[in-house]
Amino acid sequence: MQTHTTRRQLLTAIGMMGGTAALYQAMTTMGHAAETQFAGPPNLSGARTGASVLVLGAGLGGMLAAYELSKAGYKVRILEYQNRAGGRNWSLYGGDTYTELGGATQKVGFAPGHYLNPGPWRIPHHHRTLLHYCKSFGVSLEPFIQFNHNAFVHNEHAFGGKPVHFREAAADFEGNVAELLNKAIDQKALDAELTTEDKDKLKEALRGWGMLDADMKYKTNLLSSEHRGYERTPGGGVNGAPIPSEVFKFRDVIDVQVWKNMAFFMNHEMQTTMFQPVGGMGMIGKAFAKQVGGMLTYNAKVTKIMQDKAGVTVSYTDTATGKATEAKADYCVCAIPLGVLNQIENNLSGPKKSAIAAVPYGNQVKIGLQMARRFWETDDYIYGGHSFTSQDIALVSYPNYKLFEDGPGVLLGAFANGAGAFRLAGMTPEQRIEAALAQGAVFHPKTYRKEFQTGASVAWSRVPWTMGCCARWNEETRKQHYQTLVALEDRTVLVGEHASYVGCWMEGALLSSLDAITRLHKRALEA
Amino acid sequence: MQTHTTRRQLLTAIGMMGGTAALYQAMTTMGHAAETQFAGPPNLSGARTGASVLVLGAGLGGMLAAYELSKAGYKVRILEYQNRAGGRNWSLYGGDTYTELGGATQKVGFAPGHYLNPGPWRIPHHHRTLLHYCKSFGVSLEPFIQFNHNAFVHNEHAFGGKPVHFREAAADFEGNVAELLNKAIDQKALDAELTTEDKDKLKEALRGWGMLDADMKYKTNLLSSEHRGYERTPGGGVNGAPIPSEVFKFRDVIDVQVWKNMAFFMNHEMQTTMFQPVGGMGMIGKAFAKQVGGMLTYNAKVTKIMQDKAGVTVSYTDTATGKATEAKADYCVCAIPLGVLNQIENNLSGPKKSAIAAVPYGNQVKIGLQMARRFWETDDYIYGGHSFTSQDIALVSYPNYKLFEDGPGVLLGAFANGAGAFRLAGMTPEQRIEAALAQGAVFHPKTYRKEFQTGASVAWSRVPWTMGCCARWNEETRKQHYQTLVALEDRTVLVGEHASYVGCWMEGALLSSLDAITRLHKRALEA
Repeated sequence: MQTHTTRRQLLTAIGMMGGTAALYQAMTTMGHAAETQFAGPPNLSGARTGASVLVLGAGLGGMLAAYELSKAGYKVRILEYQNRAGGRNWSLYGGDTYTELGGATQKVGFAPGHYLNPGPWRIPHHHRTLLHYCKSFGVSLEPFIQFNHNAFVHNEHAFGGKPVHFREAAADFEGNVAELLNKAIDQKALDAELTTEDKDKLKEALRGWGMLDADMKYKTNLLSSEHRGYERTPGGGVNGAPIPSEVFKFRDVIDVQVWKNMAFFMNHEMQTTMFQPVGGMGMIGKAFAKQVGGMLTYNAKVTKIMQDKAGVTVSYTDTATGKATEAKADYCVCAIPLGVLNQIENNLSGPKKSAIAAVPYGNQVKIGLQMARRFWETDDYIYGGHSFTSQDIALVSYPNYKLFEDGPGVLLGAFANGAGAFRLAGMTPEQRIEAALAQGAVFHPKTYRKEFQTGASVAWSRVPWTMGCCARWNEETRKQHYQTLVALEDRTVLVGEHASYVGCWMEGALLSSLDAITRLHKRALEA
Repeated sequence: MQTHTTRRQLLTAIGMMGGTAALYQAMTTMGHAAETQFAGPPNLSGARTGASVLVLGAGLGGMLAAYELSKAGYKVRILEYQNRAGGRNWSLYGGDTYTELGGATQKVGFAPGHYLNPGPWRIPHHHRTLLHYCKSFGVSLEPFIQFNHNAFVHNEHAFGGKPVHFREAAADFEGNVAELLNKAIDQKALDAELTTEDKDKLKEALRGWGMLDADMKYKTNLLSSEHRGYERTPGGGVNGAPIPSEVFKFRDVIDVQVWKNMAFFMNHEMQTTMFQPVGGMGMIGKAFAKQVGGMLTYNAKVTKIMQDKAGVTVSYTDTATGKATEAKADYCVCAIPLGVLNQIENNLSGPKKSAIAAVPYGNQVKIGLQMARRFWETDDYIYGGHSFTSQDIALVSYPNYKLFEDGPGVLLGAFANGAGAFRLAGMTPEQRIEAALAQGAVFHPKTYRKEFQTGASVAWSRVPWTMGCCARWNEETRKQHYQTLVALEDRTVLVGEHASYVGCWMEGALLSSLDAITRLHKRALEA
């Protein structure tokens, strides 16, 4: 850790002197890859004796602020609305009860060891802040199988509504693109762009990448089957010879829009390798909570946040007893989601209030479905990964734990967004399950309903403590409000994925937190 | 199991009546996907009382034959040349000693729990035979991380010899291909191939897949960075805004030949999800050996295989004592690799002998390098997967076990083939390690030599009990010799990956074995 700390100190010094560009240049010059803005844990030692901080919200961002500020010498208290820490870092297990806005209560019936992660569920390898604290706090991670060639792609308007394997559609997309581009080269359509040598090398690439035959055609043969899969795979003994599978019509391949899935997997945040905590995503929140346990006050509903030259006063009500209380501190780290914060009385500036009100939240819906047996593995040879569909559920995702085991498995039966999520959120929990079964059955028609046992759903627009999933910035709101939102205003600073460019990811909340408390500490020392 | 058995019986009956095509049609009609030729374990019950089989070679194919034939009622003995079972299914651990042809002996020095898999090292999800028996025999599997966007691609003749990340080169390849094809469409070069509607849909696909901007250009901006990675990734707080990375020159991207890696990952046998046994690939051989333990005779060097109307006589020498013995049985399942079998006296037919002699074996070389710490994870954010190079070592592969742990890790420092393998095999074990360090350092220049602790290598051309890695059929040899090789000749049948179309994979050996013993059993019942 010592090397990290020293480097961090140096970088902080450079940042203070020269601003972002200088800091960034220094980071890369020092050989630090640009794959993260995390430069090791902060070194905030030397808080003034007795200086205090109130942290509002025990999500990951709030708890990290509490942990690091407390280490720096601050007296820290965390007020949390719920009776548990972790916030959106959350897993639902059998025996849990969850009541959504509107009053519907679900008693979760999953078998022991199985779970639904309503919020975050996967960790990219480049989310270094999160990975650092997972290791520091003893959270065991296992691979999250993000990319699965053998899962399905389904579009209601292609292949007569029948799903196809990702590998088949992706291979055919690549093969046809390669064949068409080669044809265009031969017709001299790209002579202005490519030298003769370029053309030769590109043609070789297209042939190898696109599995084109000697005539530069992509068609049904053992070559294309090497990528898309066989009608009969290679085997052993007398009947070992493979039989090629028939390539799809290119028009169907375009209609199934497999390119969307291909692009999805190339998204930097979706790239392999990814991870998940052993036992459910909520293990991270629990591990963070263990570090700040003594600072936590649960069931504290914040009703007012006021700051002045003397300090910050936060009014809150105990949701269990109804008792109203005031808490005071020198500074405030507010990690309350914007939609909730927007409804809390405060004396922040007008521009800050506008920024808080400006950012809408997503309305994602997730549904967990427990199946009596892991038929996707035994019958369909799918281990982890996602089958995508144009229906409201958007996808079916296959669990990455208890692979190969007998007994049940909990599928993610929906990860809906936008209009689809709006429709699912409008249903009762029972109706949501029914919709998820009806739609998901397109991938596994013989087994989906038959093996279903129990389900649970979370519609984020109905989650009482966030009223939405996560902040949805756009170019316009970023320009107008982002710097105002993240600016330290007197004694208060906002923290969370909403105060980052890594929106909707735990990493965003943590990076926001480290940045905010570093600035807060600096001001506290200058005060 | 009952349903499998019944189905298998039915399929066998259909196969006998109508041959391959009928069998295949029946399989698909019965809803069995064509992703495997495995239709469940065979049902070979009803062997004649006292009927006996000699199995030569305790690789997976031989042991599976012994297991199933013994279950069917045969008296089975296995003769194995080595003092262990498993054959090429093999892991080298600390404390192991290995002597290659030429006499060089290596004492393996890996830390406890670490290993090199000299032979097979990954299991595709569609290798159903192997997965079936792994489960039956209690072998625990864990994900093998095959695909890693963040690993490197290196070609000595591109980017001035500097490696680039797969994601960068792959994104740029796709982006440029998309831009060029779009340009060709605009120039009406493909009007003969595409309708106006097709063109519109394809342009939309190219834009989304290739990350083209509003002008249908692929260039340095936040859009292309979403796929290739950023110069500075999105972060939190005041300096959260990302900085785009600069796209490569297309010429460099073609020269680095990233398309080869893209095509590699799309190869059906290399597609995700893949697995490895917990604790090393050799755990499978050990699990098989447990099932057939009582049938095994170790240190038995087969010197002669003779069959006549009365039975099969196999002469062998005990390599420990030098004592020569004869073993007799009604039938023989010979699972000896072809290069070795070719040197054993036998009275098989001329065509069979020609087939045995016709198939060359690969000369792969694998090198394991133990590093004091997992710098590829902590410094380079690479967890599993492979960095590819045009150098002799061909790749560096990162271990898929003990991820995130402190302490050492064993890299696969080479998986050479062809001319590269020839050069490495010609070296002493010490020279091989030196070559692997020199070449692998291209990916991790600051750490590779510094963290190196100990290594081990296996050059398959020098492995005493196979004299090669696995059978390398080509179209010509298949046509001329394959059916002759796999045909049951009197009382003897050959088994192994060499008797399959799944060459060089454990699955091939198992499928070959099941096919061979099914035919053998049929003949035995008819005799």
